[in-house]
Amino acid sequence: MQDGRSADVVVVGAGFAGLAAAHELAGAGARVAVAEARDRVGGRALTRLLPDGTQLDLGGQWVGPSQHEMRELIERHGVRTYPTPEHGRAVVDYEGALVDAMPAEVTALYGELDRLSREVPADAPWTHPQARCWDGRTLASWLDERTSDPAVARTVARQTAGALLSLDAADASLLETLFYLVSGDGLDVLAGFAGGAQSDRLVGGPQELAGRMAAALPAGTIHLGAPVRRIEHGAGGAVVHAGALRLEAARVIVAIPPVLAGRIEYDPPLPPRRDGLTQRMAAGYALKTHAVYREPFWRARGLSGISFSSAGVLTETVDNTPPGGPSAVLTSFVYGADAHRLRTRPPGERRRAVLERLAGLFGGEARDPVDYVEFDWCAEPWTRGCFSGHLAPGAWTGFGPALRAPVGVLHWAGTETATRWNGYFDGAVQSGRRAAAEVLAAG
Amino acid sequence: MQDGRSADVVVVGAGFAGLAAAHELAGAGARVAVAEARDRVGGRALTRLLPDGTQLDLGGQWVGPSQHEMRELIERHGVRTYPTPEHGRAVVDYEGALVDAMPAEVTALYGELDRLSREVPADAPWTHPQARCWDGRTLASWLDERTSDPAVARTVARQTAGALLSLDAADASLLETLFYLVSGDGLDVLAGFAGGAQSDRLVGGPQELAGRMAAALPAGTIHLGAPVRRIEHGAGGAVVHAGALRLEAARVIVAIPPVLAGRIEYDPPLPPRRDGLTQRMAAGYALKTHAVYREPFWRARGLSGISFSSAGVLTETVDNTPPGGPSAVLTSFVYGADAHRLRTRPPGERRRAVLERLAGLFGGEARDPVDYVEFDWCAEPWTRGCFSGHLAPGAWTGFGPALRAPVGVLHWAGTETATRWNGYFDGAVQSGRRAAAEVLAAG
Repeated sequence: MQDGRSADVVVVGAGFAGLAAAHELAGAGARVAVAEARDRVGGRALTRLLPDGTQLDLGGQWVGPSQHEMRELIERHGVRTYPTPEHGRAVVDYEGALVDAMPAEVTALYGELDRLSREVPADAPWTHPQARCWDGRTLASWLDERTSDPAVARTVARQTAGALLSLDAADASLLETLFYLVSGDGLDVLAGFAGGAQSDRLVGGPQELAGRMAAALPAGTIHLGAPVRRIEHGAGGAVVHAGALRLEAARVIVAIPPVLAGRIEYDPPLPPRRDGLTQRMAAGYALKTHAVYREPFWRARGLSGISFSSAGVLTETVDNTPPGGPSAVLTSFVYGADAHRLRTRPPGERRRAVLERLAGLFGGEARDPVDYVEFDWCAEPWTRGCFSGHLAPGAWTGFGPALRAPVGVLHWAGTETATRWNGYFDGAVQSGRRAAAEVLAAG
Repeated sequence: MQDGRSADVVVVGAGFAGLAAAHELAGAGARVAVAEARDRVGGRALTRLLPDGTQLDLGGQWVGPSQHEMRELIERHGVRTYPTPEHGRAVVDYEGALVDAMPAEVTALYGELDRLSREVPADAPWTHPQARCWDGRTLASWLDERTSDPAVARTVARQTAGALLSLDAADASLLETLFYLVSGDGLDVLAGFAGGAQSDRLVGGPQELAGRMAAALPAGTIHLGAPVRRIEHGAGGAVVHAGALRLEAARVIVAIPPVLAGRIEYDPPLPPRRDGLTQRMAAGYALKTHAVYREPFWRARGLSGISFSSAGVLTETVDNTPPGGPSAVLTSFVYGADAHRLRTRPPGERRRAVLERLAGLFGGEARDPVDYVEFDWCAEPWTRGCFSGHLAPGAWTGFGPALRAPVGVLHWAGTETATRWNGYFDGAVQSGRRAAAEVLAAG
């Protein structure tokens, strides 16, 4: 390297944010080094193939039509997609009764949240005239004011704070909820299958796309098994200590979840507002389980495998069978306190509870899977949560301006910094490209 | 060392929690090593002497009669105390008018918070029948329900979430607020001077006491300049990497703020609930400034130097003049968003704003101090907040049980883990002693 540096830019993290940043920079002629803690790329994208070849997506898995950044990458790198199976009707369980649709009061509250969310500027939620008020109340409080029916409140909480943010309504401020809704094109798109955020899956999973993005970078760009512990930075550049590596660069893009970015040692220490931001952006808590069967038995009953329950051990399920199988997969989701409760049960008991609930929803065959797979992202030291990080109540208005503001030569990426599809791979890509643009603009 | 280990127990952090733990363990015959990141002991206790010898306490500074742990240490180590000066009457500014007392609606709300707080079990707030509800609403929401007068809400918010927790009412759950009140003997004691938590000061400051505690430990116990970055742990013991040191021990007590404890690398990684706890326990944000004068001019006007304002740039002030001076000191406090706003102004402008407000409260002489000192604990990499850490809304019920639960051979101390005087040095001492007792009970 002619200037003695390892690279022009060091990118921390080889998830979609880091990979997208590296591509933009390399495409503009910059020399890039990516330091990744894991021995693989892809971050929260992780595909596991069962012995028979059936694809399980253990992390994020879907892409929707308005996720333009991901769509473009999928096309560019030639990854095939297929529609999420919807062979039949969804099961909606409201307070133990199967219903055709949620009660009108529930859908009215969805509508109200959606309407409010469209007022929130996704690039600066703290500037909304009601920001202080909405940031200072939780979704739980807001629901208490709006309905006297605890089942209605619980249902809305499960489908929004839960199924979207992986939080409880007690953890999520109204402002964070509204921001998340507007960043993902509103509740119908966020929660939808065909035409929505759960529209399509990738052959090989999102990890396949991440792998192709990595392979398309100049050889030697990505350093695996190189966790970044310390970053020295100043006006003249930065030194990034990544495992045994010492990487020098003019600028750094930190493209990992904010809670992990806060755990890196910075010298000099980061300013209070930036540090305070990472103190207040805990990751959500979801548990995703996969029950594997020889046949998608639910389809014969006219069921899609999709379900939503207002109570009980599972919040949502989906048919995760890849086209051509060979096995069939029912995937279940549970969030926040429900996920805590389930997680603390012994593994055998947890499996039984999940399968028994699937049997109640789709038929007794659910009790006898050929395989049952769990993966706990909250236990992963290089992720520490699922799906993504969210600012605590009060934090958007107190610390929000520090979310993307560079600190000298340090720039911040990661889906938590995205203004569109925050929390999704699409947002991660947007964030990486935005951070790369900042670096390139800085010269 | 006969077993090849550096110590029986390694204590991380030489604040009051770590020092108290080390004393209990050493007193019981255990070999202890304390690893401290800074080049001094005392943690959030820091005394600075002005050139004329006037003592400024830049961090925590008071002790009250029901803080039995600190009282006992002060007596044992022979540190002298003196009553906080109260030569005259306090200034109470309610919405720009000087009043004798806060409006009845304000005091009624204090009373209601106090009554509710007495229901909360300080050792397990999450077990209260209303815990989910109280944890899921912010103090801001609660105030909105209780009063339609924004000035009343702001005043209660400033004096509780602000002056006690260093938060905004938007950040603090009702449950965290109530827990904090009950842990400190209720609002009157927490907010009180004579007879309350601000009753007395220490000659030489709390750092003097910390220094004496350190000096009373066996020589070589404390390792300064030894920041702990990594802890390997298992059934057989632990290895603590502290700067260049490698300390082996049977057990470890981590006695630093939870947000910093979460930034240590643990091998194996900590379980999700413990990690999730540290993700959700941000430190408060206070700014404390000291204006130094030749004379305590306010006393001649019959004023105590104590003030509380329902609005404006300073929330509270106090006469911080040591007996015998030689200089006089007016110390000011501002919290949460108010502190952010003040902090982001240029230093000269900030100084002018503080002094102008002091002039309005106590007289024009306040505009011309002989010295003006600020110290920003939020910028300190080994503290990162002020006064102490608080669980975010929803976190007590989701993660509270992980607050003190040991993880194998790892034990947790620090004032944030205290059940009495949480957030105070007294709570830190209690926590250190409790953690030491856990270690000794484990054999």
